[in-house]
Amino acid sequence: MTDTPTERGYTEGKADYAKRLSRIEGQVRGIARMIDEDTYCIDVLTQVSAATKALQAVAVNLLDEHVRHCVRNAVAVGDEANLEKMIAEATKAIERLVKA
Amino acid sequence: MTDTPTERGYTEGKADYAKRLSRIEGQVRGIARMIDEDTYCIDVLTQVSAATKALQAVAVNLLDEHVRHCVRNAVAVGDEANLEKMIAEATKAIERLVKA
Amino acid sequence: MTDTPTERGYTEGKADYAKRLSRIEGQVRGIARMIDEDTYCIDVLTQVSAATKALQAVAVNLLDEHVRHCVRNAVAVGDEANLEKMIAEATKAIERLVKA
Amino acid sequence: MTDTPTERGYTEGKADYAKRLSRIEGQVRGIARMIDEDTYCIDVLTQVSAATKALQAVAVNLLDEHVRHCVRNAVAVGDEANLEKMIAEATKAIERLVKA
Repeated sequence: MTDTPTERGYTEGKADYAKRLSRIEGQVRGIARMIDEDTYCIDVLTQVSAATKALQAVAVNLLDEHVRHCVRNAVAVGDEANLEKMIAEATKAIERLVKA
Repeated sequence: MTDTPTERGYTEGKADYAKRLSRIEGQVRGIARMIDEDTYCIDVLTQVSAATKALQAVAVNLLDEHVRHCVRNAVAVGDEANLEKMIAEATKAIERLVKA
Repeated sequence: MTDTPTERGYTEGKADYAKRLSRIEGQVRGIARMIDEDTYCIDVLTQVSAATKALQAVAVNLLDEHVRHCVRNAVAVGDEANLEKMIAEATKAIERLVKA
Repeated sequence: MTDTPTERGYTEGKADYAKRLSRIEGQVRGIARMIDEDTYCIDVLTQVSAATKALQAVAVNLLDEHVRHCVRNAVAVGDEANLEKMIAEATKAIERLVKA
């Protein structure tokens, strides 16, 4: 299977990501509405935690598929150099996620 | 100053929260678009980390103002019992944020 | 009850904290031993996550007791100014915990 | 280079990990001492955040070296199946770290 330039690790699940992100977008809009309607602060925070968790789950999924995709390609062509670069990038992304 | 039932700790900064949350909503929509347009995964993850960080900053601000508001009211009326309940709730919210 | 300078919010549970922290110290020593004995990396990471979680739970408990203690004192003497300072400090500590 | 059963991705930096973990162990012991000596709570929390951060940095490093090591081996022998298993494990470890 050839790898066209625009194919990414997440290509298969595009529709799923669209659905999850539109739900998160709705959650964020919901938080704005809750504040506008003077909802009790702790309930607003519960929503913020839920949206944060959902975003981080998306990130972990994207990363998993990305690594899987890169590794498959690299093994197929035996391209170790590219993998080292990919792992360095992925590690930096993980650092940002852990600290986010 | 009397405290009407719907006044929250965050009432003063409502417009600010609205602005910040609408920006985060835009970031989430941007992430969906990036995936739809096959943006390089690591760049998508950078955006996810930025949105997560922005959400968590909103949460810390909400919590700060909430505690400030409750404490001011409780000190004004010497209502210690209510404060204990408030702190227990706030601690649970912090736990959820730290784990989110 | 007077408040001596060295009394902290956590004074009551000192023995508990000592026990929990000595357990965490043991976990960290365990992680070093695992690495020294070439334990499988993923198992080492599981231990690191457990120790991190335990440390964060200690932090949330310390913060809860600290806020409780300050608020009780401030309500007792009606000292609102001190509370504002305490909340600002607590918020910064929460920010560091959330980002840690 | 042959891969003996006990060689791990982190084997090269063993001495470094030992040093970092012994420093973290000292930090945890320091936190216990601070509590025993009634140090101001917020200062204790600063130490807890520092120890947590140091632990998470160790985790990210371990993970980075682990993935690098597995990938190198798999590319060398063209073993894709093993890599899929490794990535699934690594993703779970990342999830635990992000939530820790």
